[in-house]
Amino acid sequence: MSERYLNSQLAAELYHTIANLPYICPHGHVDPRMFAEANYSFGTPVDLLIIPDHYIFRMLYSQGISLESLGIPRRDGGAVEQDHRRIWQTFADHFYLFRGTPTGIWIRDELEHVFGISQKLTGSTAQAIYDAITAKLAQPDFTPRRLFERFNIETLATTDTATDSLSYHTQMRASGWSGHIIPTFRPDAVVNLDSPNWLDNIQKLSQISGVSIHNYASFIQALEQRRAFFKQMGAVATDHAALTAYTEPLTATEANRIFQQALKGDLNPDDTRRFTGHLLIEMARMSVEDGLVMQLHIGAFRNHNSLIFEHFGRDMGGDIPIQTEFTRALRPLLECYGNDPRLTLILFTLDETTYSRELAPLAGHYPTLRLGPPWWFFDSFNGMAHYFDQVIETAGLYNTVGFNDDTRAFPSIPARHDVWRRASANWVAGLVTRHIVDEEDAAEMMHDLAYGLVKQAYRLGD
Amino acid sequence: MSERYLNSQLAAELYHTIANLPYICPHGHVDPRMFAEANYSFGTPVDLLIIPDHYIFRMLYSQGISLESLGIPRRDGGAVEQDHRRIWQTFADHFYLFRGTPTGIWIRDELEHVFGISQKLTGSTAQAIYDAITAKLAQPDFTPRRLFERFNIETLATTDTATDSLSYHTQMRASGWSGHIIPTFRPDAVVNLDSPNWLDNIQKLSQISGVSIHNYASFIQALEQRRAFFKQMGAVATDHAALTAYTEPLTATEANRIFQQALKGDLNPDDTRRFTGHLLIEMARMSVEDGLVMQLHIGAFRNHNSLIFEHFGRDMGGDIPIQTEFTRALRPLLECYGNDPRLTLILFTLDETTYSRELAPLAGHYPTLRLGPPWWFFDSFNGMAHYFDQVIETAGLYNTVGFNDDTRAFPSIPARHDVWRRASANWVAGLVTRHIVDEEDAAEMMHDLAYGLVKQAYRLGD
Amino acid sequence: MSERYLNSQLAAELYHTIANLPYICPHGHVDPRMFAEANYSFGTPVDLLIIPDHYIFRMLYSQGISLESLGIPRRDGGAVEQDHRRIWQTFADHFYLFRGTPTGIWIRDELEHVFGISQKLTGSTAQAIYDAITAKLAQPDFTPRRLFERFNIETLATTDTATDSLSYHTQMRASGWSGHIIPTFRPDAVVNLDSPNWLDNIQKLSQISGVSIHNYASFIQALEQRRAFFKQMGAVATDHAALTAYTEPLTATEANRIFQQALKGDLNPDDTRRFTGHLLIEMARMSVEDGLVMQLHIGAFRNHNSLIFEHFGRDMGGDIPIQTEFTRALRPLLECYGNDPRLTLILFTLDETTYSRELAPLAGHYPTLRLGPPWWFFDSFNGMAHYFDQVIETAGLYNTVGFNDDTRAFPSIPARHDVWRRASANWVAGLVTRHIVDEEDAAEMMHDLAYGLVKQAYRLGD
Repeated sequence: MSERYLNSQLAAELYHTIANLPYICPHGHVDPRMFAEANYSFGTPVDLLIIPDHYIFRMLYSQGISLESLGIPRRDGGAVEQDHRRIWQTFADHFYLFRGTPTGIWIRDELEHVFGISQKLTGSTAQAIYDAITAKLAQPDFTPRRLFERFNIETLATTDTATDSLSYHTQMRASGWSGHIIPTFRPDAVVNLDSPNWLDNIQKLSQISGVSIHNYASFIQALEQRRAFFKQMGAVATDHAALTAYTEPLTATEANRIFQQALKGDLNPDDTRRFTGHLLIEMARMSVEDGLVMQLHIGAFRNHNSLIFEHFGRDMGGDIPIQTEFTRALRPLLECYGNDPRLTLILFTLDETTYSRELAPLAGHYPTLRLGPPWWFFDSFNGMAHYFDQVIETAGLYNTVGFNDDTRAFPSIPARHDVWRRASANWVAGLVTRHIVDEEDAAEMMHDLAYGLVKQAYRLGD
Repeated sequence: MSERYLNSQLAAELYHTIANLPYICPHGHVDPRMFAEANYSFGTPVDLLIIPDHYIFRMLYSQGISLESLGIPRRDGGAVEQDHRRIWQTFADHFYLFRGTPTGIWIRDELEHVFGISQKLTGSTAQAIYDAITAKLAQPDFTPRRLFERFNIETLATTDTATDSLSYHTQMRASGWSGHIIPTFRPDAVVNLDSPNWLDNIQKLSQISGVSIHNYASFIQALEQRRAFFKQMGAVATDHAALTAYTEPLTATEANRIFQQALKGDLNPDDTRRFTGHLLIEMARMSVEDGLVMQLHIGAFRNHNSLIFEHFGRDMGGDIPIQTEFTRALRPLLECYGNDPRLTLILFTLDETTYSRELAPLAGHYPTLRLGPPWWFFDSFNGMAHYFDQVIETAGLYNTVGFNDDTRAFPSIPARHDVWRRASANWVAGLVTRHIVDEEDAAEMMHDLAYGLVKQAYRLGD
Repeated sequence: MSERYLNSQLAAELYHTIANLPYICPHGHVDPRMFAEANYSFGTPVDLLIIPDHYIFRMLYSQGISLESLGIPRRDGGAVEQDHRRIWQTFADHFYLFRGTPTGIWIRDELEHVFGISQKLTGSTAQAIYDAITAKLAQPDFTPRRLFERFNIETLATTDTATDSLSYHTQMRASGWSGHIIPTFRPDAVVNLDSPNWLDNIQKLSQISGVSIHNYASFIQALEQRRAFFKQMGAVATDHAALTAYTEPLTATEANRIFQQALKGDLNPDDTRRFTGHLLIEMARMSVEDGLVMQLHIGAFRNHNSLIFEHFGRDMGGDIPIQTEFTRALRPLLECYGNDPRLTLILFTLDETTYSRELAPLAGHYPTLRLGPPWWFFDSFNGMAHYFDQVIETAGLYNTVGFNDDTRAFPSIPARHDVWRRASANWVAGLVTRHIVDEEDAAEMMHDLAYGLVKQAYRLGD
């Protein structure tokens, strides 16, 4: 029988050539605060593994387990389960729900490789495993910084709002710790006019940038100021989320008209959509100028379940993908900057049908475009297999950018990258077995998939 | 070489652990009349296998064989082939057309396992096989009831219009035969205002329910009355077909306005669509109240070929799928009842792109949602492989509902379930081989796929 | 280890039963001029392999290599690289970009089997390989006619505009050479009213047909005249490209109104779209009458990158697929001719989601419909696997038409057909191994895939 997750002996051999390369994590949602202080504590196993992970509680919720019973804080401060041992028991009792899912794989691998627990998680082992994790978390080598080093992470990018002071990043550097953790500029909350509390966000942006924002021109100036600050703090990239890939260049007059309407709180959905579409083009222009790599994530209908949003807020497992279109929607942006080698624009999708139909042909033609790895629901064995199967023949491997873990769950980072490396080995081994590439090519491809592509795409130097 | 349809030795071992479990058939179109009388006869091999099976004659028609020559009755009573031996010969001469199709598999398995015929069906064996089937059908153990018992069917649900008296069900029970055959409430012909003969159907509904339907309120009352009757007759579920998943809650006033227009025969397509969308929400409400599981089948453009519809009527192989959207369309219904544990809503699609993009994320979040098995054109080896590949990682196995055979062709039931069980074994074996699940999990998953999930989802007790 | 591109020993056995059958090439873009003269020279390796192949330079361009540096002629006559050794070096230096792509496979196979070069193409072998190809091209058996014979091509169809005089075809026949090369009638440039230089094209059509085109009726008459001429010159098919599958029958009056507007240069996009949709139905009518097989290729957004189009013209790698719909769009045409056995309409798509959802159900019902092989970006190992996986269970093998190479690159023809034959063997072997078809069926299926289906579908006689 083959090795874990690997399809063949050759896949195992290929995997082992790159299994120990450092991890580069150019996109994710780890909280920088945990690295600001040397002795940050993760809390209980439930604080660490359940409460921050919407992959886990969405599945439990789908089977009728309330978020309250899992200790997820309510917005109204209402009562939720406080007994973390009981929450852990509920999770373990239902861990069978994750059979065949990426979450199931990550949790098992994490228990084994981060915490040294090889026992199977079930209702009857729950408390013993809780004890074992707790004991490990009490050890001095279980701080975020020590794990960062042990995990062999070369670079970790966080994701930070445009109005973030980056104080944790500053504090981390001031502490003298040498871990390479960099911010990413994510301005959604100020550029998407329908963001919750948009006016407040604009005020914050004024304050933190020192630019008094009273019209479109000063708004753009403030954004440019913040990008410069992020870049100075080590950022190599920006990140943008939008419902669709719609882009449209507006005249400065039209952009200002819409912006003024927004300042007055007098918006219509069409203007909002057009403004986002225009700002994406503006962000591409700024990237041409300042060299920050641009990332675009589209296709999630956020907060689909109003009840959950109302009681628990955003990112609670209730975001659902929609059909996505790139060919027409992205064209106005590409007409402006698609041939400019100074821009790198990395695209992410939640609609796998776009891989072979639109994304691979686009990335296989435009010099600026690269394809991000399988995202969110598709950060999985099958998701990766679909990606290799549907993207590479048309886009080529070298218009892709390696792996992003995109995670909030810091201790799951090695497990997630390891899945990618094993899935890569399966794919490359299949090409070798069928004589589509030779072993020399295969060795280079493995290194590129695990390490080379991400470093080059995100301009992370040598 | 491996066993039939199985990819590996392990798959064969897993398959054999569940191969002999009883069949549960919670959704299908078998005619209850055949069980009402103890000695019902299937007729000729052509009556049994060709004339009722649109899978078969659509393929023959696509290659230029007229439906008349296959004995399919014309609506105008025009001449069609009456010589069943000749029809069978035509079918056998063209049986090569079904190479690699599910129909080809079902027919072969049925001949072998129901009729004991292992000879290959070709032009030259046609008449001998016709004789062999005919001889079997003349035996006393080839009645529907005896086959039901021999097939080891635990429960079989029929599909019945809202205006059906369920007299065959009554007759069956009165006969003392113990086969568990239950009705399913399918009100399409009264809730879709553009159904053929809608006004007649409303009159029938008035008569059979004893509720004089003169407005929207009495219409709802009649539907509730019928649901209660179906439930009393053993029904555990309702079934709904719609072109799209569009839902919209209407006010009672608006619903009544549209209903009154319909009574006057004065409809527009938009109102029709909105009324269906409203009634789906109403049906969800009733399910919350009476506990009937709700099934929703969408995405078939019915009667695409007008010539065929005109000459032969509906269900003649001329229904073609369309692109389908759930995320936005179903949201209004989910906003009403998506978090209510009393509702189970099982979704079916003819657009495989919705599996990973919409259905799995929805089912992996909403407590009410479950995903039905691959439907219609996708009730096939590849269709099942796509389903396991694209659904489970995000939805989890436990938000699916096992298998439905959905067939009119009673003797094909074991063959269809057997394909599902073998496809399940292939999938689970692949997970074990790659160490994604262990053998203990695999054994439980196999039992759930073959038996446990369907029983639980359709509330069929223990 | 298995044989090249083959998954199993059985696949190898099946492949070898049909590996040496002649090639039938019913759809492609080889220039007939190269066969008109006995001693036509291919020029340099770059003239032969790089400059005409947009698959190659789109990938190089996507990685920042300018088309000028690859010797692609500019429309403005601006300077481009003239040193073909240097261009070849650039190509070889970047040949790693094609790892795992069909282009990489074709080039390698072509070097090996057409030119006898088994050395791997890299930066360091580039010049030696250039020399070796050059030496071969200087040999008398490396003319197009000798290669046509050596490749064992039974029939090759070119693609020719409606206004083409077919003079090269005439010249070829007059020369007494017996290679079977036939034209295909492709009227896009006159029937799509928004074609560049449409008015000029209409004038050319008037001249060459001898029909003075002044209204819709005379336009149709001219088209019928040209079809008759193409048929007389050996054509068996027409070919049509459209952005979508939209069809709509117009009255003669309405068609004439739009046509008159077009003659005046006064068009709107909606009329243009409707006229194309009407002409597709007219073309189906003409096919019913003259027996030419109708091919329809849809879904490419042409010239997506304006900069590239402006500098280099069309077919420069900047065409990107869009989402495609057939069920509703094609219905008006099918309502007219879908049941008419005199019509064969072969459909091609760039949206793989249409395979299982729309195309296979349509082709599995309508007698006129057949499905073309995987097209353009999908003429690849994975593309073919998806096709077999998603099409055959519903459409059946016998509603497909074998393989088309669709190539401009004459020497790549054997490599492309060989990929299809090996992919076919992998698919059929998989069916045999799982006992879905037996070995007798498999042998016939292999022959049909490689030779029988294409010959029958394109009415190429015995």
